Amino acid sequence: MFAHNKRLQYTVRVSESNPGLANLMLEQFGGPQGELAAACRYFTQYLAEDDPGRRDMLIDIATEELSHLEVIGTIVAMLNKGSKAQLAEAVDSEAELYKNISGHGNSSHVTQVLYGGGPALTNSGGQLWSAGYIDSIGDPAADLRSNIAAEARAKIVYERLINLTADPGVKDALGFLMTREISHQQSFEKALYSMQPNFPPGKLPGKPEFTNVYFNMSSGEGDARGPWNTEPTFEFREAEVAVDGGSGLPEVTMTRGEASVSKQAAARLASDPDSNPVTGAMLGMGGADPTAEGIVDAKAAKKKAASSQSAKRGSKTT
Amino acid sequence: MFAHNKRLQYTVRVSESNPGLANLMLEQFGGPQGELAAACRYFTQYLAEDDPGRRDMLIDIATEELSHLEVIGTIVAMLNKGSKAQLAEAVDSEAELYKNISGHGNSSHVTQVLYGGGPALTNSGGQLWSAGYIDSIGDPAADLRSNIAAEARAKIVYERLINLTADPGVKDALGFLMTREISHQQSFEKALYSMQPNFPPGKLPGKPEFTNVYFNMSSGEGDARGPWNTEPTFEFREAEVAVDGGSGLPEVTMTRGEASVSKQAAARLASDPDSNPVTGAMLGMGGADPTAEGIVDAKAAKKKAASSQSAKRGSKTT
Amino acid sequence: MFAHNKRLQYTVRVSESNPGLANLMLEQFGGPQGELAAACRYFTQYLAEDDPGRRDMLIDIATEELSHLEVIGTIVAMLNKGSKAQLAEAVDSEAELYKNISGHGNSSHVTQVLYGGGPALTNSGGQLWSAGYIDSIGDPAADLRSNIAAEARAKIVYERLINLTADPGVKDALGFLMTREISHQQSFEKALYSMQPNFPPGKLPGKPEFTNVYFNMSSGEGDARGPWNTEPTFEFREAEVAVDGGSGLPEVTMTRGEASVSKQAAARLASDPDSNPVTGAMLGMGGADPTAEGIVDAKAAKKKAASSQSAKRGSKTT
Amino acid sequence: MFAHNKRLQYTVRVSESNPGLANLMLEQFGGPQGELAAACRYFTQYLAEDDPGRRDMLIDIATEELSHLEVIGTIVAMLNKGSKAQLAEAVDSEAELYKNISGHGNSSHVTQVLYGGGPALTNSGGQLWSAGYIDSIGDPAADLRSNIAAEARAKIVYERLINLTADPGVKDALGFLMTREISHQQSFEKALYSMQPNFPPGKLPGKPEFTNVYFNMSSGEGDARGPWNTEPTFEFREAEVAVDGGSGLPEVTMTRGEASVSKQAAARLASDPDSNPVTGAMLGMGGADPTAEGIVDAKAAKKKAASSQSAKRGSKTT
Amino acid sequence: MFAHNKRLQYTVRVSESNPGLANLMLEQFGGPQGELAAACRYFTQYLAEDDPGRRDMLIDIATEELSHLEVIGTIVAMLNKGSKAQLAEAVDSEAELYKNISGHGNSSHVTQVLYGGGPALTNSGGQLWSAGYIDSIGDPAADLRSNIAAEARAKIVYERLINLTADPGVKDALGFLMTREISHQQSFEKALYSMQPNFPPGKLPGKPEFTNVYFNMSSGEGDARGPWNTEPTFEFREAEVAVDGGSGLPEVTMTRGEASVSKQAAARLASDPDSNPVTGAMLGMGGADPTAEGIVDAKAAKKKAASSQSAKRGSKTT
Amino acid sequence: MFAHNKRLQYTVRVSESNPGLANLMLEQFGGPQGELAAACRYFTQYLAEDDPGRRDMLIDIATEELSHLEVIGTIVAMLNKGSKAQLAEAVDSEAELYKNISGHGNSSHVTQVLYGGGPALTNSGGQLWSAGYIDSIGDPAADLRSNIAAEARAKIVYERLINLTADPGVKDALGFLMTREISHQQSFEKALYSMQPNFPPGKLPGKPEFTNVYFNMSSGEGDARGPWNTEPTFEFREAEVAVDGGSGLPEVTMTRGEASVSKQAAARLASDPDSNPVTGAMLGMGGADPTAEGIVDAKAAKKKAASSQSAKRGSKTT
Repeated sequence: MFAHNKRLQYTVRVSESNPGLANLMLEQFGGPQGELAAACRYFTQYLAEDDPGRRDMLIDIATEELSHLEVIGTIVAMLNKGSKAQLAEAVDSEAELYKNISGHGNSSHVTQVLYGGGPALTNSGGQLWSAGYIDSIGDPAADLRSNIAAEARAKIVYERLINLTADPGVKDALGFLMTREISHQQSFEKALYSMQPNFPPGKLPGKPEFTNVYFNMSSGEGDARGPWNTEPTFEFREAEVAVDGGSGLPEVTMTRGEASVSKQAAARLASDPDSNPVTGAMLGMGGADPTAEGIVDAKAAKKKAASSQSAKRGSKTT
Repeated sequence: MFAHNKRLQYTVRVSESNPGLANLMLEQFGGPQGELAAACRYFTQYLAEDDPGRRDMLIDIATEELSHLEVIGTIVAMLNKGSKAQLAEAVDSEAELYKNISGHGNSSHVTQVLYGGGPALTNSGGQLWSAGYIDSIGDPAADLRSNIAAEARAKIVYERLINLTADPGVKDALGFLMTREISHQQSFEKALYSMQPNFPPGKLPGKPEFTNVYFNMSSGEGDARGPWNTEPTFEFREAEVAVDGGSGLPEVTMTRGEASVSKQAAARLASDPDSNPVTGAMLGMGGADPTAEGIVDAKAAKKKAASSQSAKRGSKTT
Repeated sequence: MFAHNKRLQYTVRVSESNPGLANLMLEQFGGPQGELAAACRYFTQYLAEDDPGRRDMLIDIATEELSHLEVIGTIVAMLNKGSKAQLAEAVDSEAELYKNISGHGNSSHVTQVLYGGGPALTNSGGQLWSAGYIDSIGDPAADLRSNIAAEARAKIVYERLINLTADPGVKDALGFLMTREISHQQSFEKALYSMQPNFPPGKLPGKPEFTNVYFNMSSGEGDARGPWNTEPTFEFREAEVAVDGGSGLPEVTMTRGEASVSKQAAARLASDPDSNPVTGAMLGMGGADPTAEGIVDAKAAKKKAASSQSAKRGSKTT
Repeated sequence: MFAHNKRLQYTVRVSESNPGLANLMLEQFGGPQGELAAACRYFTQYLAEDDPGRRDMLIDIATEELSHLEVIGTIVAMLNKGSKAQLAEAVDSEAELYKNISGHGNSSHVTQVLYGGGPALTNSGGQLWSAGYIDSIGDPAADLRSNIAAEARAKIVYERLINLTADPGVKDALGFLMTREISHQQSFEKALYSMQPNFPPGKLPGKPEFTNVYFNMSSGEGDARGPWNTEPTFEFREAEVAVDGGSGLPEVTMTRGEASVSKQAAARLASDPDSNPVTGAMLGMGGADPTAEGIVDAKAAKKKAASSQSAKRGSKTT
Repeated sequence: MFAHNKRLQYTVRVSESNPGLANLMLEQFGGPQGELAAACRYFTQYLAEDDPGRRDMLIDIATEELSHLEVIGTIVAMLNKGSKAQLAEAVDSEAELYKNISGHGNSSHVTQVLYGGGPALTNSGGQLWSAGYIDSIGDPAADLRSNIAAEARAKIVYERLINLTADPGVKDALGFLMTREISHQQSFEKALYSMQPNFPPGKLPGKPEFTNVYFNMSSGEGDARGPWNTEPTFEFREAEVAVDGGSGLPEVTMTRGEASVSKQAAARLASDPDSNPVTGAMLGMGGADPTAEGIVDAKAAKKKAASSQSAKRGSKTT
Repeated sequence: MFAHNKRLQYTVRVSESNPGLANLMLEQFGGPQGELAAACRYFTQYLAEDDPGRRDMLIDIATEELSHLEVIGTIVAMLNKGSKAQLAEAVDSEAELYKNISGHGNSSHVTQVLYGGGPALTNSGGQLWSAGYIDSIGDPAADLRSNIAAEARAKIVYERLINLTADPGVKDALGFLMTREISHQQSFEKALYSMQPNFPPGKLPGKPEFTNVYFNMSSGEGDARGPWNTEPTFEFREAEVAVDGGSGLPEVTMTRGEASVSKQAAARLASDPDSNPVTGAMLGMGGADPTAEGIVDAKAAKKKAASSQSAKRGSKTT
């Protein structure tokens, strides 16, 4: 069961109203790397976790993330507090109010017009938060790695917000929130590596003939080698089709009935490769005889284009 | 630039039509842990990556994931090939066709009715693929960890599909795809750890007084200790408000005009704590005098309920 | 700041594994009327609320909804606990496991294959939770009404789940959760009506000539009268265009430049009403001369169709 | 069946092209509180409603909301009419056109580049309209409350738009649309209260021992009392776990096979609380010996930090 | 199987950093008419296509679209390359960095703060890419038409971007990408019309009495005639209900049990048309006696309003 | 302005309750090819259309599609009418009700539990309707093609539903709805081709050297030729990089400051290709010495695997 104390985990001090900055802060409130995503991620894992140690850790951190959601949401609310009342009470002229909500160079107009200045569960561009942001799949060797990565991402987004914030109180609180991501990442790392073995995750081993192969799928200038595609870990191989030694072509066995009806459908829907049909595009070429069609002499056009290419670049007709 | 060879990277052999199994396979085609998500993840990172080694690795693996998308999509297409034609040609009765699409105990009806048996970019429940599944943020210390986690998740989902698949050819191809996730995870691990330091990610250090603290936010039975909340890495502390030493209460400085209009809004919208208003709910209690309201004697009700609780459990009136 | 106690607000007792029932329960975990939506709704309102009474009430109820999210999520986890391990350990045959996840007649396969049996933030059909479910707009006269409605909806969905649940422990816990929605609705009602006036919400009055008019937009059999469209509250009027007394046709004043370029675009894109062009559809009618086109004699066809209608209904050719 | 008259229900007069204002107006076209949501809400309820009075009212209002969708969409179209042609015909330079679509301080560039100046079913930030905005659940005691709340929200968003609009013709039409929400709310209120009883919604009564209890889940400064948590309606209680009198701990009965395989999974996936593993984070600390790990002396750091806190606030290193 | 060459299909030359322009380019990277949508559209059709000619064409074009995705994504990356490092390294002041990300008059702040300057799979407003953009349904007569339309849309969006771009290298590359859409449209047209017949799509004929009827559903000023509603193709008819000759009223046969329980539900939920209930709105009118209710004399108000209408238009009180 | 007649455009007669069939019908109510999408598509185009003929046609067809939405929604409501009341009144046992909602082999449980048997704006799998389904972009040469394609798709989905429906009244109404799509497609075709020229859409011509080129991007078995890649329309060319004659490598000119900070970021984030770091995966291999790492001898493993491949296929260990 949750309980709440109306004091924050970290004190929020805001120097002045700033709806533009408020809007950027939404990134860590309702954005994909934000605190709601973090809290939901750990809380849902907690519910299904059987290991006592991980279970306790997950709910400790989930509860702290909820408390961080409150801190970042409070920052948004404080930064918006002045502008919120201005739009609600409308004591200024329409032109001034319009300028107020549009003059921040970002999407803060959505926060004002639609959400009335309240912290909304969107990112800084107004994209609604979605549970698609949460990648928990119910296996600790995968989920702990997902948590480690999530903390790393949240740390970086906080760092960017800190770099963009001149208000000292907001900067200070963001610094705390960023720091806790570092701490949480370390907890998840300890939990992962105290479960042995944890690689490869799951129970099934890989096919040994492909577990340590690196396929060079992209050729040409820029090919590089490093520990990620080199011995002793990897056998480096050029890309090839049908690495299983088969034909590389799909097969399916169908019943006689299925095969027959498939054939029937194929016949009904066949394109005739030997036709040269009049098309809708030809009908739409305007004025030209739709039954005749001269190929644009592409080779000639190409030569001509090449010779005049530098001149033409950027011209109105492309 | 991409090029394509019409042979698959791994040969697909399907024993018989099986639209129900086809539908499950969509999880790795258009699901959150599937191959499209993987390919898009690495490809978009590639485009913005400046480090030559990582850049090459990312496009190698992105290209292979596209080739895996083709393999898993081909499995779906082969498993659906028979049923697809049956619905299109409608040689069977309505009742038989209806049974065909509804008899698989999962959401395969969507694949048949809406997508005509083609592989659709949805998961096995019909949820449309969304770029919200991709968590790249443009920092390699975060993105490589995200990639490691993504490979771990994909490995597990393939393992589950393998456990559910009796068709030997499908099982074999799934085994290949699962194996490659193990290999790719190892490449991303090598790339991460050959970048030093990579922890904490980013450039800003944390606040040292909070970097190695573990807050015990959840109390009571089940509290556990382990390396994730213990020395030498962590100082274990009980939860407390205002860890910064402040009041824990938010503050904002507003201009005089903002403060005045805020006060005006607050007055207009104040709730009167000393009133006892008639409410809409009271009006809707049906027959009762809406101006009178007797509290359900909750304490008495509770005692009575407690005494009869075991009997009542599960009864129709809850 | 939030804190957590590892005991639940209400004890969850589950009689037996039941993944099908678990899946239905997701409706109140990650569905639109579920507990996450409720908690987020009140918590975000709390952050921006200035009225001390409402602020306290909102966080009290938000915290309780989080605790309910834990109860319903725990029910899901317990109902899935057996099947989760079966798929992870794969001690049964593929055929048995496949039957296990597909045999529940609902979308529980998604929960098993994708989420590994953990409670996922989706509804019972696998639709991902979205912040689009939360309709808070930052005005208490609107938000309290939204909260009242949300509690009413949640009460009904719980009632449906109770009607579908034979497990007595699950039924008992659902009964508690349903009951709390009734209580919360009453709190929101009291808060709304202790703010006076609260209707119409906001500050601007309506145009008096349209505030109490009911337009009869749908004619014909089934027209009904009741207090919702009758005196003394309403003037009942037949639908009419341009109720403002104007032309009902839109106008815009453009600059000379805008008008000229608009005219230019219109000319470029004009359809010729006097033409009878050959179309793509005509080209695709197969074998017919695409330059000739005989209208299907629709009137004759209609008569013929009418005479044979009862016979034809339901026939294969529609 | 619907029919249409090409005159509007209310005449739209726009003074000048204004793509920025056009974009804000989208909030009530394709936004969550907009007219499409309203029309769909009442229309879908109508289809399933059996009560003749409500049925007629729902389709009357749905039809009027469709007519309002036309009014607000026409406003958008008129405000964009000039800029739309400018981009299509490209008679101005690239720089001027770029400035045109980017100079409005809100997201109007999406409307221009993607939608070509036509009214799109998005909100003012470009978020696509989703049926997740519609909360109908097929019970009139819930749906009528949802409708009442929806009308209240729409009224407020129109009020905000009116406050932001200086164009007199647009302001006038918005005033009409806002007024009709007031009227519709009154109709839904009459319909709700003419159904008795309507509270609690549905058929099942609550558990009497919890129906009128208020749990004080949030403690500390700011606790407030009011009619929403006070007698005569409510018994005020402090939060407690396991209010049912049980243990507050979840239980599930599993078959012997399920229990055994659960135990097997738990053993395979157990974290060792007594280990102190080397972790990935430690490997990434750069240069440090990954097998040694000195705890940052968090307590000392904390003291030091506290003493220098006011100075450090806002500094570049956080 | 896919392979990759690290050279682009078309050379990208960018004159200077321009994050605002970068953001607009996202429209064709992760927007609905962009290259990912195109590639996924043709690739998924390829997987299920049996006709050898169409199958080859689909994968040729899908592979080219992937290569175009790389070109447009590279343009985004180059335009963002400078600003990306500035935010990551934070060598400038907070104020300068804030101005940098907010000064472009569009949603580029999302690209910078959330995605770190990398090409993200969103449109230019930050809306996440969704598979809902892909409309393939597994029938070639429908899918080829969808492809033709998709190419036409992509051509137009490229044209708009070209009109907005002053950078000659970017404009040149956009010109290439736009041109290829023209070419691809022609291929899909040829493929459609070489399948005969292709209209109407599918196998079932329409009901002949309605196949060539045009219903005039919208009356009044602006009614127009043209080849789309005129002989020889169409019979022009005024709208009418129940064109089948029936009652136009729905019927369902229910079992006796269903009918009885339906009647029971209807009785429980009936609204009383003869009541005049006190409503929540009346309770909220503030100070007024909630049991009395005087109708606003709407007709009188209307007259008064009409007389003062021109004066009032645009005034603060609406 | 819209008006409504409470009779349907086509009479709906349903033989018996059938919630499973009801659920399939949602595909054309709230699915991507359904009637809401159609109505919204044409209605939004209407609002921005200036051409008088197209404008009238668009609103005629939009209004008819709304009337079709009513027909298909009524079918859903009738098919669900019995089951809806059963769940609301709960006169049957929990087990019977559970079986009722789960026994249809598709996702009908969502319709019952969440939407109470009412027609919901989802597809048959519960996916919420989204405006992402609408592809209008404000250019008639593109939008008319999109409309043609949309009608073709809707025709096919109706055909599939007809093939699955045994209820004669439902089948008859579906036949009408399908037929109207054929008619509407013809209208849009006439409108497109009466606008000349309409190909290529838009105003800018393509680059002539690439307008009629077909690149053969996919090689190998299955290469096919047809009118879509052949003279006289197309020049057939093998895929090549940098078709512009450049290097195929991206370039950007940055300011000195940008270049310097980019270099700084690159140095900070460089991976060392000559290292062979210990990785997290190595730490997780369980028991093995994490500082040693023997490559799995992939070549040897491959040979061994090949020799035993047929035996191993389908075995538990993959």
